[in-house]
Amino acid sequence: MSDHIYIGADIGGTAIKVGICDENGTLLHSYEGPTGTEDGQDAILENIAAYVRKIVEDSPFAWEQVAGVGIGIAGFMDIPTGFMKTSPNLPLRNVPIKQILEEKLGKLVKINNDANVAALGEAWSGAGAGIPNVVCYTLGTGVGGGIIIHGKIYEGFNGMGGELGHMSIVPDLEAIQCGCGKMGCLETVSSATGIVRMAKDAVERGDRTSLSHIDNITAKDVFDAAKAGDEVANRIISRAAFYLGKSMAAIAVVVNPQRFIIGGGLSKAGEFLFEQIREVFRKFTPETAQEGVEILPAILGNDAGVVGAAGLITRS
Amino acid sequence: MSDHIYIGADIGGTAIKVGICDENGTLLHSYEGPTGTEDGQDAILENIAAYVRKIVEDSPFAWEQVAGVGIGIAGFMDIPTGFMKTSPNLPLRNVPIKQILEEKLGKLVKINNDANVAALGEAWSGAGAGIPNVVCYTLGTGVGGGIIIHGKIYEGFNGMGGELGHMSIVPDLEAIQCGCGKMGCLETVSSATGIVRMAKDAVERGDRTSLSHIDNITAKDVFDAAKAGDEVANRIISRAAFYLGKSMAAIAVVVNPQRFIIGGGLSKAGEFLFEQIREVFRKFTPETAQEGVEILPAILGNDAGVVGAAGLITRS
Repeated sequence: MSDHIYIGADIGGTAIKVGICDENGTLLHSYEGPTGTEDGQDAILENIAAYVRKIVEDSPFAWEQVAGVGIGIAGFMDIPTGFMKTSPNLPLRNVPIKQILEEKLGKLVKINNDANVAALGEAWSGAGAGIPNVVCYTLGTGVGGGIIIHGKIYEGFNGMGGELGHMSIVPDLEAIQCGCGKMGCLETVSSATGIVRMAKDAVERGDRTSLSHIDNITAKDVFDAAKAGDEVANRIISRAAFYLGKSMAAIAVVVNPQRFIIGGGLSKAGEFLFEQIREVFRKFTPETAQEGVEILPAILGNDAGVVGAAGLITRS
Repeated sequence: MSDHIYIGADIGGTAIKVGICDENGTLLHSYEGPTGTEDGQDAILENIAAYVRKIVEDSPFAWEQVAGVGIGIAGFMDIPTGFMKTSPNLPLRNVPIKQILEEKLGKLVKINNDANVAALGEAWSGAGAGIPNVVCYTLGTGVGGGIIIHGKIYEGFNGMGGELGHMSIVPDLEAIQCGCGKMGCLETVSSATGIVRMAKDAVERGDRTSLSHIDNITAKDVFDAAKAGDEVANRIISRAAFYLGKSMAAIAVVVNPQRFIIGGGLSKAGEFLFEQIREVFRKFTPETAQEGVEILPAILGNDAGVVGAAGLITRS
C-alpha cells in the first residue's frame, strides 16, 4: 500500500462524488452525496470538504496520507489560482475555491474543468493508461474534449486547449450556428443535441424514417433506428461520425497523439459508431500520422471525473 | 559575453549554413558553404563538421565554449537517436548522423527536421520570442509547420506533430489529392504550388484574368495580379487565405497557442495576405480562444533554420 493517497472530487449540479485513488490511479473508495446547489455557495463548498473528510475517515487510510484534493467542476475558472469565475450549473461566482478548500482541509487543493479532468482520468488509469499523449472526446449533450501531453492536462494560452467541440469543421454551406456563436462547430453535428436536431429536421422535411413515429426523439432512438437499418438514421449517424473522424485527422497532424479516447453517453453506441469514425480517420490522415494510432472507447465511465480529479495532484 | 555558445547547421540541397548563437538565440556569426551533395554521404557529413570547426576558429570564441551542435535537415529521421532514414533531397539513407558528427566533433549533436527547427528559431528569438506556445507555418512550395509547446519542439507520437500542410481541410466536393496520397490537404490550396495550380486551372477554364497573359505563372504573379485588382487572382488568394485561417481556428481549440507565425516565401505578400487570414480566423474561432492571440509574420527569414538548429541544444 502506498504511503500517499490522492482524493478526487467531481462536482455536478445535483451530486458530488469523491474518491480515494492510489498512486496508479486505481479508485479504492468512493462516496456520493448531494451537491446542495439550492443552499448556495457556502453550503456547496462545505459539502465538498465534509465528503472528503468522511471518505478518509471511513477508509483504512490516515488523514496524514492525503497528498492533496483535486476538484473537477464545470465552469470558467483561472486554473493556477483555483478561482472560479462562473459556473453554468452551480451558484459559484467569483469564488476562490482552491483557497477556501485549502483553509477548510489543510491540504493542497487543485481545480480544473470537468472535461479536462475526465480526460486525465482516462489517461491515468483508463483507456490511455501508460500512453503519454492522449486526446479525449466526451460525447454528450455537447462535445467536450481534453488533451493530455506528456501525461499532463494541456490547457493552452486561454484555457481553450482541447475544446474540441468548438472546432469549426462543417463546410459553410451546410453549417449551422453553435451555442458559442460560431458556425459549423463539431458540437453542432456530433453531440446528442446535434443528432436529435438532424433527426427532427429529417422528420419535419418529411423524410421516410421510422423516427417519424417517435414523439420525443433522443440520440439513442437515432442510433437504434440506424442499427435496425433505417436509412435516414444511418445518414445522420454517419454524418456525426464523419466530422468526428475528420476532426481526429486534423488533430493527428497537430498533436499527433498515440491514442484517441471517446467517452460520454454517445460512446455507448459502441463499435457501430467507432468503426465509422475509424474509417473516416484512416481516409483523411496521412499514413505516417496514423501508424499505431488507436481510437478507443473510454473505460472508466462515470469514475473518470473523480479519478482524473485525484490525478490533478500528481499529474499537473 | 556568455560562457557557452550554440552552433546551428541548416542543411539544404545545395548549401549548408552554420551559425553561432548566444544563449538568447542571437545569431552572432554565420557561414555558408556548398553541401557537396554530388560527392555523397561522407562528403556531406565532413562538410558539416568542417564548417562548424571553421566558424568557431574564425570567431572570437574558443572551441571549449561550444555547448553543442544542432542540425536542421529535411527527411524522415528518428529524432532521439539522430538516425536519418531517408532525405528527399540529399543522398543520406540509414545514416546515424548524430553519432558520426559527435565522433567527428567531440560535441553533443542533436538533429531535427527543417520545419520544426525553423519554428524553434522563430519561437526562440524571432516573432515568438518570450512566448511559450507558438504554432508556425512555412508557406513555400509546400506548407510546413512546427509547434512549440512550453518553449520546446513538439514532435508527437509519430513525429507528425505540426505537419500542418497535411490537415485535410478542403471539403470533399472541392478537394484534390495531395502528394501525401490524401484528399483536401491544406497544402493543396495554401502553398505556392497550390496557388499556381488554381491559377492555371482558371486560365485553362477561360476565366477572364490578367494571368492568362503570363507564360509561366508563379505564386508571386498571382499575388501581384490580386493586389492590382484582378478578380480571379483575388479569388485564388482568398481561397488560400481562407483555409489557412480555418486551420488556425481548428488549432486554436486544440493547441490554443498564444501566437501563430507565418514564414516562407509566400509570407512576403505581407498584410494583403495576413489581413485575410486574420479575418477568417476571427470568424471561425470562439471568442475566448482568440483573445490575445496574434497572427504575425516570421522575422528571422532564412536565418530561422540556423538559429533554431542552435536552439536544439538548449531547448530540446
